[in-house]
Amino acid sequence: MESSASSMQLTRAADYAVRVMIHLATLPENERALLPALAEATGAPSSFLSKVLQALSRAGLVLSRRGHLGGFEIVERGRKASMREVIEAIDGPVFLNVCLIDGMSCNRKSWCPAHKVWEKAQAAMMQILDSAIIADLAIQDAGAETTGQSPLHTLSQ
Amino acid sequence: MESSASSMQLTRAADYAVRVMIHLATLPENERALLPALAEATGAPSSFLSKVLQALSRAGLVLSRRGHLGGFEIVERGRKASMREVIEAIDGPVFLNVCLIDGMSCNRKSWCPAHKVWEKAQAAMMQILDSAIIADLAIQDAGAETTGQSPLHTLSQ
Repeated sequence: MESSASSMQLTRAADYAVRVMIHLATLPENERALLPALAEATGAPSSFLSKVLQALSRAGLVLSRRGHLGGFEIVERGRKASMREVIEAIDGPVFLNVCLIDGMSCNRKSWCPAHKVWEKAQAAMMQILDSAIIADLAIQDAGAETTGQSPLHTLSQ
Repeated sequence: MESSASSMQLTRAADYAVRVMIHLATLPENERALLPALAEATGAPSSFLSKVLQALSRAGLVLSRRGHLGGFEIVERGRKASMREVIEAIDGPVFLNVCLIDGMSCNRKSWCPAHKVWEKAQAAMMQILDSAIIADLAIQDAGAETTGQSPLHTLSQ
């Protein structure tokens, strides 16, 4: 039954969302980036990334401006967002198992020993994703950039 | 982009696999259970559970016998298995993000700040799933059973 190789796996859209948010947060304040540059920096196909950016814009994490001085810009709320918030802006709430979904009434919940394990696994994972803040990650990214390890230097994505 | 409500979510097959393994481990040694009883105990549709049990049998976690004294029986390796092993027997290796897959060469890996977060999130989650052993969970389950909270008593799944 190994057909579902993507069991418990982040969607590509959410992965690209995290990448693009971190990259936008490395740019100087008020600097806007154009889609082709963002596609290059994140390694995402432009058309796909465009949809991801629209979703991030609807979620209030980036600002999208059209026209002469147009482009994408991260907003304060986006800099302060956690990886979890970025992921959930794209994919909706993350639950490792259906039994964890709020309001889902699995009638096994009260006694099922596996349910307790799922709660713990979800909490352990979320604690990491909650504490990973985009602005902080961007500082690490910028650090890698000055040592020549960022894709802006290698252009190899 | 909220179409993928199942982002980072366990498959139903793996969820049922965990349920059936725990239930089989509550049974007395050498006792075999028939599919309808297992379907009732786990709340899984019989035909789907049958495929799950075949996969668990192929993985060497349960024994499936045909005929007069036939049925499904958990083996020692199955009792000692962790929830992670049961899940992976059904879904294959679990990776929260593609960049964690062994041998996948995301060329961002060496510097990407998100990659390090994914490694930590995966390790935190796996630590919980690795330490949840089927035999131990079955003891909790059996405990719930004697207090009348198990589905064998409620029959409400």
